[in-house]
Amino acid sequence: MYALVERLYPICRSITGDGVRRTLEIIGESIPLEVHEVPTGTQVLDWTIPKEWNIRDAYLKDASGNRVVDFGASNLHVLGYSVPVSATMSLEELRPHLHTLPDQPSLVPYRTSYYAETWGFCLSEETLAGMDEGPYEVLIDSTLEDGHLTYGEYVVPGQVPDEVIISCHTCHPSLANDNLAGIAVAVELAKSLVDPWYTYRFLFAPGTIGSITWLARNQTDRIKHGWTLACAGDRGSLTYKRSRRGSEIDQVAAHVLKDREHTILDFTPYGYDERQFCSPGFNLGVGSLTRTTYAGYPEYHTSADNLEFVSSEAMADTLAVCREIVQVLERNRRYVNLSPYGEPQLGKRGLYGSLGGRSDTKQLQMAMLWVLNLSDGDHTLLDIAERAGLPFGAMAEAAQALHDAGLLKEMA
Amino acid sequence: MYALVERLYPICRSITGDGVRRTLEIIGESIPLEVHEVPTGTQVLDWTIPKEWNIRDAYLKDASGNRVVDFGASNLHVLGYSVPVSATMSLEELRPHLHTLPDQPSLVPYRTSYYAETWGFCLSEETLAGMDEGPYEVLIDSTLEDGHLTYGEYVVPGQVPDEVIISCHTCHPSLANDNLAGIAVAVELAKSLVDPWYTYRFLFAPGTIGSITWLARNQTDRIKHGWTLACAGDRGSLTYKRSRRGSEIDQVAAHVLKDREHTILDFTPYGYDERQFCSPGFNLGVGSLTRTTYAGYPEYHTSADNLEFVSSEAMADTLAVCREIVQVLERNRRYVNLSPYGEPQLGKRGLYGSLGGRSDTKQLQMAMLWVLNLSDGDHTLLDIAERAGLPFGAMAEAAQALHDAGLLKEMA
Amino acid sequence: MYALVERLYPICRSITGDGVRRTLEIIGESIPLEVHEVPTGTQVLDWTIPKEWNIRDAYLKDASGNRVVDFGASNLHVLGYSVPVSATMSLEELRPHLHTLPDQPSLVPYRTSYYAETWGFCLSEETLAGMDEGPYEVLIDSTLEDGHLTYGEYVVPGQVPDEVIISCHTCHPSLANDNLAGIAVAVELAKSLVDPWYTYRFLFAPGTIGSITWLARNQTDRIKHGWTLACAGDRGSLTYKRSRRGSEIDQVAAHVLKDREHTILDFTPYGYDERQFCSPGFNLGVGSLTRTTYAGYPEYHTSADNLEFVSSEAMADTLAVCREIVQVLERNRRYVNLSPYGEPQLGKRGLYGSLGGRSDTKQLQMAMLWVLNLSDGDHTLLDIAERAGLPFGAMAEAAQALHDAGLLKEMA
Repeated sequence: MYALVERLYPICRSITGDGVRRTLEIIGESIPLEVHEVPTGTQVLDWTIPKEWNIRDAYLKDASGNRVVDFGASNLHVLGYSVPVSATMSLEELRPHLHTLPDQPSLVPYRTSYYAETWGFCLSEETLAGMDEGPYEVLIDSTLEDGHLTYGEYVVPGQVPDEVIISCHTCHPSLANDNLAGIAVAVELAKSLVDPWYTYRFLFAPGTIGSITWLARNQTDRIKHGWTLACAGDRGSLTYKRSRRGSEIDQVAAHVLKDREHTILDFTPYGYDERQFCSPGFNLGVGSLTRTTYAGYPEYHTSADNLEFVSSEAMADTLAVCREIVQVLERNRRYVNLSPYGEPQLGKRGLYGSLGGRSDTKQLQMAMLWVLNLSDGDHTLLDIAERAGLPFGAMAEAAQALHDAGLLKEMA
Repeated sequence: MYALVERLYPICRSITGDGVRRTLEIIGESIPLEVHEVPTGTQVLDWTIPKEWNIRDAYLKDASGNRVVDFGASNLHVLGYSVPVSATMSLEELRPHLHTLPDQPSLVPYRTSYYAETWGFCLSEETLAGMDEGPYEVLIDSTLEDGHLTYGEYVVPGQVPDEVIISCHTCHPSLANDNLAGIAVAVELAKSLVDPWYTYRFLFAPGTIGSITWLARNQTDRIKHGWTLACAGDRGSLTYKRSRRGSEIDQVAAHVLKDREHTILDFTPYGYDERQFCSPGFNLGVGSLTRTTYAGYPEYHTSADNLEFVSSEAMADTLAVCREIVQVLERNRRYVNLSPYGEPQLGKRGLYGSLGGRSDTKQLQMAMLWVLNLSDGDHTLLDIAERAGLPFGAMAEAAQALHDAGLLKEMA
Repeated sequence: MYALVERLYPICRSITGDGVRRTLEIIGESIPLEVHEVPTGTQVLDWTIPKEWNIRDAYLKDASGNRVVDFGASNLHVLGYSVPVSATMSLEELRPHLHTLPDQPSLVPYRTSYYAETWGFCLSEETLAGMDEGPYEVLIDSTLEDGHLTYGEYVVPGQVPDEVIISCHTCHPSLANDNLAGIAVAVELAKSLVDPWYTYRFLFAPGTIGSITWLARNQTDRIKHGWTLACAGDRGSLTYKRSRRGSEIDQVAAHVLKDREHTILDFTPYGYDERQFCSPGFNLGVGSLTRTTYAGYPEYHTSADNLEFVSSEAMADTLAVCREIVQVLERNRRYVNLSPYGEPQLGKRGLYGSLGGRSDTKQLQMAMLWVLNLSDGDHTLLDIAERAGLPFGAMAEAAQALHDAGLLKEMA
């Protein structure tokens, strides 16, 4: 995963343009991605696909011809969606177009202006402090023209058409945690799925306009569960933010996280693309998984969100939790006890004996009693596990044994 | 408000009679009161309008002709609804008719006997201790005859016929906090209402029988919210008692009080006229606002509930809270997001720019996102404010801006 | 009660056989028991009535002819349902048939094997340690043949056919707390019922198969409340385990126990015959009352659960709580206020005066106001008592007075 982050890091991405296309190409080397191109001007829900932005070079040159600020050194130096500029200006004239972080003087901020046409440079406060009155040669060699918005998706077909969506934003330039780490974990999770129960859909799309575009072009009623995956590589502990409507994914994520250091947040209409999936018209069961929470670390949206800020271990940990979530989701069914009057006699069906010799025999016997008692169509296996205070795995194994013995029917 | 309390203080009020009429006349100088007279014997719900009681004078004179107990000094000295008496009695004969407070020996209690015909005097334990064996000349120059029960009401018409009722009991003689302070705050609140959304009804009526009379003679289904207002002038902090059924007024009052020292009590079927409004047949959304809670201070129903016991500052504070409650109630609507699929694009409608330059810009942007996300017809603005942890005012302003931009429809 | 425990203690009971018959005969001397005999092979729900087991003698004799382990000394020494054996064996051969408690070396365990035909002896670890290599004369003089399962029931008819069931397991041999104490308390409770409102059914049946047999042969929809009664005589405090569905009996038991040291447990599908009554098909309002909780004491299912382990005081305390539960259940009705618009005038009906002179007058007046206010058909008297924070007895008395005055109607 770290190698993928390293490879994607230098690319200048935005909500449209060749950087996104190149990113999807690289992802496509690992998983067979279907790439969509949506023309500028297309109406998507309340929004319109904007012009496509591309950039070749940009700089501020001082009187000696030195590139004081250079796109080649970091693509963060250009305000995203800057219109082309070629001019000579004094520092005073330039000043309204320069963005710094006065409280973090050594860092370059990440800024964009997608829907108001302007241009600008982002630089450290320290660089700004070292600049004389000028004049400066100002170049932004960009294009902002009719084109396309590009996104990719990969679907792993399941035994049922009900879908789980995992969505990553792909619009950020050289920011490692936000969101190359999320992309890398999603790719690895996608590769790990073999013949799943649910159909899994991985969406790689620019933030906001990308998910809105996808929502505008697809049926959403098959999406039963999902989460946005972002900031998946920093060294903080995991954070899960609940979906708007409260849903099974919230319960599953809390269950998986409960024995780790973690944070659970209630839904807020701010953050990543769960904002769109959880808008009241869609109101999907989509939460958000990050490590340190959205905007909750000083490196957020700065040049310090770099390759050193993310670690292989953190991404592996995020991936492990994603896999556990998948494992619980996959087996979290609802059953009906077919012998609900009194306890069925487990012994004559070999259900006590079958467990002999294992250290968790007693736990599995209790799990069978719990599953039988609460399988009335109202309780999922996870509901039962939480009520019983027993591991989900024991419930799933007990349910399988009871189902095989003809004592349970699975609910549709 | 304090001046009104001072002016009303000397008048001898009861559940009927000229003291109530005079009180309503004085209130009528500030707000145009409609006064109702209901004849003795009228059936009102399970009750019957009692005889009208009036009193001119009353005393106990000792052998030297000194008025040991004198109605002229304080109208508390006569048991309310005492029948006329003119007799000479020894202290021993008098004793069953004398009421004191042995635990508060310097205070005169407030006592009545509305529905059992008797007579009596209230005096301090200290006065009683100084009385010799007598004989005493006993006079109560009262009348208890067919007449009327008198109450007043003032209605401020709103844009909708749905009503908010504010009810004050008017039956107590010289007790300043209970309830001249409540009356004074209600009068001031009534004067402050200009072209409100709701129709506001102010009821000035004797306790129990007065509200029962009003309830018997009026349609109650237009009453959506309300509170009884009593003990509004003591120096304690505010107390809000919830309505029986749990209602919007309870939520609003708790929201308004949450940043002050205050107490919230669950409904009990005891206290002021919320008992009647919240009887199970009516079950209205009517709570009760007092400062120190009902019967919760030693001066309660004694001669120590006097003009010194109440303060202008306390009444001003009660009034301020009443006004805040009105402000939240007035604006606490339920909306439906007309662009519920994904977030609507606020920028193109000028909704980001419109907020520029204000220190609370970010709060208002968050408020807009919250209002859009939760305006599904199930949530009021106050629900959303509490869920978001943002001020109600920000929600109301955000909703107004979104409504003006055509993004919200108000629910009927 | 202690005398009954003493008399029943030596009898060798099991899930079938003459020990159970003798036990029911003795119970029948106190209360007129209806005894049922269900033939071996009868299908009962998912189970089949097993063969009947009886035993006359059993021992292990060492080479010197000493009975090292002797059924005559304690019937716990034989594994319940042991098939007949007559053989000579070395200790090594015997070993798989010997059951001890290594962690409690001086105690004899209680063990059974109802549904797998085998034989065995239970003995203390200390006895085992003292045994040489043998050979031993091994005798179990038992029969395991077609016969009957035996259970008894006693019904106290009430004014309504709705039933309260109290169920005790009768299948344990010489274990005093589990469950002779439960049987003794149930007998005494049954004797104390005189003309009750509900119909009370006392069931004395072997664990699991007994209650399953009863459930298979009876209509269960008349059972409104109930509890299993077990471990009723140890010196620990009382434990109530809730029914599966949450029911009135849970609320009543918690109310009765709240001023004593006690434990309330949520339902689990393990323990006594509440497992069967609360299987999802029946889902009855049946909880479980014990002193120290199921399997929660070291003497549980060992020879230390003997006559010294139980006390008269503990059984008397359990009985007292059972009686209080009955008293609350019997009077816990739901009323409708027939004068729900405003408060009815209590004075004119003598409802204030009727209470004069009692120290709890004020409490009863408050109780009347609460009953009137919350008697809307949704609240039981116990609901109202808990909401008001007043004793149930005051509510019941207030309701009676209001009912007599024609102000309340009892709900069907």
